[in-house]
Amino acid sequence: MDPRLENSSFKIIDWPLSEVRLKDNAHFPWIMLIPRVSASITEIADLSSEEQKILMDEITQLSTAMRAHFSPDKLNIGALGNIVSQLHIHVIARFQHDLCWPHSVWQANIPEQSYPIEKRDQLIHQLHTLLS
Amino acid sequence: MDPRLENSSFKIIDWPLSEVRLKDNAHFPWIMLIPRVSASITEIADLSSEEQKILMDEITQLSTAMRAHFSPDKLNIGALGNIVSQLHIHVIARFQHDLCWPHSVWQANIPEQSYPIEKRDQLIHQLHTLLS
Repeated sequence: MDPRLENSSFKIIDWPLSEVRLKDNAHFPWIMLIPRVSASITEIADLSSEEQKILMDEITQLSTAMRAHFSPDKLNIGALGNIVSQLHIHVIARFQHDLCWPHSVWQANIPEQSYPIEKRDQLIHQLHTLLS
Repeated sequence: MDPRLENSSFKIIDWPLSEVRLKDNAHFPWIMLIPRVSASITEIADLSSEEQKILMDEITQLSTAMRAHFSPDKLNIGALGNIVSQLHIHVIARFQHDLCWPHSVWQANIPEQSYPIEKRDQLIHQLHTLLS
């Protein structure tokens, strides 16, 4: 895994295709699906048809769980990869009162904010239970 | 279709699930897939399993065509919907020399720029051929 992905997030659980990781940004409930395929794969279209099907199932499962747990106003789902090209899919719970609403979380000028350790560990534990 | 989607883009073609539309923003080759389902559907997870499968196929088909036609450095794919909640999926060809690289196209402070009419009509024609 690209170290920039690894160093900016925490593992929650392994799913059939993807490693599921919490982004270390306390501004938003933000989870990444990182397919355990070659790091040279940068686009969803590079996955096999079977891998794409599993990815869509994992996006849906994660979306459903995040809606139940966080009750967001909207989910934002994105596969960008301009900075870290290894394929990773963001699923972010958005709220009308959050830092960037109604804009995207991918703003040039919004610094990330790490979780306090205790809150982070508690959230990872909750999410591990939720996504098991 | 939500009028804000309709008024900011031009129809290219109808695919099995989605209407395929060119976003009227000359800064980036930017195409939207708008599933022809109820406008009250706001999340990918709200689609049926069969619709999700078709959507993934359409994302892949559009990605492949845009890579062939535009030769971008990266594709950006996103389903956000904070402003227009009706489900729509953005597929955007990104270049290291474009206006927002390496940041997302969804910046709070970047105005859109309409296509000149002749260029727009030519591009829609090209894309219609490419995506038929």
